Amino acid sequence: MAQHAFPEAWMARALTLARRGRYTTDPNPRVGCVLVKDGRVVGEGWHERAGEPHAEIHALRAAGEQARGATAYVTLEPCSHQGRTGPCALALVEAGVTRVVVAMQDPNPRVAGRGIARLRAAGIEVAVGLLEEEALALNPGFVMRMSHGRPFVRLKMAMSLDGRTAMRSGESQWITGPQARREVQRLRARASAILTGVESIIFDNARLTVRPEQLELPEGEALAARQPLRVVVDSRLRLPLAAACLREPGRTLVATLGDPDPERCERLQAAGAEVVAMAAGPDGRVDLDALLRHLAEAEQANEVLLETGATLAGAMLEAGLIDEMQLFVAPTLLGGEARPLFELPGLTLMAQQKGLEVLDIRAVGGDWRITARPRRRTQTLQ
Amino acid sequence: MAQHAFPEAWMARALTLARRGRYTTDPNPRVGCVLVKDGRVVGEGWHERAGEPHAEIHALRAAGEQARGATAYVTLEPCSHQGRTGPCALALVEAGVTRVVVAMQDPNPRVAGRGIARLRAAGIEVAVGLLEEEALALNPGFVMRMSHGRPFVRLKMAMSLDGRTAMRSGESQWITGPQARREVQRLRARASAILTGVESIIFDNARLTVRPEQLELPEGEALAARQPLRVVVDSRLRLPLAAACLREPGRTLVATLGDPDPERCERLQAAGAEVVAMAAGPDGRVDLDALLRHLAEAEQANEVLLETGATLAGAMLEAGLIDEMQLFVAPTLLGGEARPLFELPGLTLMAQQKGLEVLDIRAVGGDWRITARPRRRTQTLQ
Repeated sequence: MAQHAFPEAWMARALTLARRGRYTTDPNPRVGCVLVKDGRVVGEGWHERAGEPHAEIHALRAAGEQARGATAYVTLEPCSHQGRTGPCALALVEAGVTRVVVAMQDPNPRVAGRGIARLRAAGIEVAVGLLEEEALALNPGFVMRMSHGRPFVRLKMAMSLDGRTAMRSGESQWITGPQARREVQRLRARASAILTGVESIIFDNARLTVRPEQLELPEGEALAARQPLRVVVDSRLRLPLAAACLREPGRTLVATLGDPDPERCERLQAAGAEVVAMAAGPDGRVDLDALLRHLAEAEQANEVLLETGATLAGAMLEAGLIDEMQLFVAPTLLGGEARPLFELPGLTLMAQQKGLEVLDIRAVGGDWRITARPRRRTQTLQ
Repeated sequence: MAQHAFPEAWMARALTLARRGRYTTDPNPRVGCVLVKDGRVVGEGWHERAGEPHAEIHALRAAGEQARGATAYVTLEPCSHQGRTGPCALALVEAGVTRVVVAMQDPNPRVAGRGIARLRAAGIEVAVGLLEEEALALNPGFVMRMSHGRPFVRLKMAMSLDGRTAMRSGESQWITGPQARREVQRLRARASAILTGVESIIFDNARLTVRPEQLELPEGEALAARQPLRVVVDSRLRLPLAAACLREPGRTLVATLGDPDPERCERLQAAGAEVVAMAAGPDGRVDLDALLRHLAEAEQANEVLLETGATLAGAMLEAGLIDEMQLFVAPTLLGGEARPLFELPGLTLMAQQKGLEVLDIRAVGGDWRITARPRRRTQTLQ
């Protein structure tokens, strides 16, 4: 790192460090920390996994005595509560750090400014907000869970250029190429949970697992040891007992309606599933908003990857529960009989169209990845 | 233009000049010419419109006596036949040009190397093939017509991100924004003909005209004086006599099956249409290949812009008659009930998918334009 760099450069370094934890910190946030003294780094660190030290502790250990008089650049407000590694705010004070630059306040109600207050009370100068947007983007799920009580939902779809995800028969292997499938594996690896509909399991017998050989990451084997929770929306308990996902490592949660048939539940549980009964939504099926809140509360799910067909994808979109879409578009046409991206039964007028904001379009092997998010408010049409 | 430039730079200049004729030379090709002597331009020109001098003549007139000993950079082989402005090869010889660099040979069977041979016979050094691909791309329609006897077909569609061109009701105004619509106007302005199906007229009452105020070009008014031929595929003569396109400036050609009802023909002709009877194709409708050949032979159509619905677009694609697609994609979703891009009734297996080659993706206002072309051979699937 160059000497006398801008504060932004130090924080960017802390963000880069934080990103190293993107597949491993769950359910904790990804956090990075850089200690700078006399224009050079004296210590740095990042949070690697829950139960292990926070980023600040790693950086302080690396700096040792040199932390005295240093400035700490941290991507998230240092914690003030007694977690598994003690409050980081206190550790920074005790190490003699004189200035702390924080990218964003912690949305965790147990912290929420108290870490910053504790630092200031100890006479430390604290600045908040440097590269805040980048810091927020690092932890969309943690921020959503802490501030809204539900996970961040990322929809992934592989589609043809004419907006089709499979043939009418359900055949879909493979629309996109190996690079796109690798990216999907990485989306799974960073997710707390993968959400799907029972029909996707019935038709595709999808395993919904992280497969180390497809991740193409040096630490692939280690990452696959933590499989994201598989969540199957299954209002009528139709999940086949022989479903491949039930035989894979990791947990499979079947979300069904209240008062499910006890015998069917038992057989599913014996086959390896966990069954959770949810209230019915306005359409008589599993209440999707309630399910997401359950995943946030009971499972500490930060990022949920939605991998499903047009019906559940359409229902999630209609309910305003999709935060981001990653559409992998293959340069091919499947025709008007093939399966659509979203079933949106109530949409019959142009004025009801679902506006999106396209954030990014880039090539992924021979395919294209479009990252978009739904526009929240009604759009003025041109 | 810098002195001592590369030959590629002179030819690039000639291509730029040629491009100035892209809305006006029809049915002639767009051609540019630069005369270079002692490392500087002594004359340049481009073909402006049929009946007016060719590019070489404009350049020679500009150079006057300085043409003697110059090198001519021409984007297309100089003509050898006595056209309306005399053979350009002869004019170059007479002006004392000593070297000619040609980007591409003329695909016109009346020229086809004879212009080059004539130059060489007069002792002029001729090089062929500099920036040939760029020169070919300048005149896709002329090249296709001369070498394959049919026009170059460019499909334009405005679609949502989920591959829909209209609501189920047919409502489609407007999926894309004003910048995308301006680009469509420019595609019309450069086309010899616009091809559509009668259902597009019945449902949308499309005018299919170049509208000067939407072109946003300084010469807009002049360009709109030449309206592309409107061609309506109408096997059963269902075109409404009150169709808006029949009241617009320019010609409307109705392509129907052989032996059409004479009374209906007469009424259509009285309403402003021309009727041409075509053979039936394998599906019992107007033979699309024969129609394109007719447009090339009888109408000298170079570029045909296909603006139509999913049925005719699918039939053209199935018949291998689409050379390029320009898909204007709006960041919006219309849902699974909305109208598809292509009806491809026989396509039921992934192995039958229609592979495309994406040539370009770029932002156009708030929308995206994807330029693609169908892959001609069966693709190996991954």
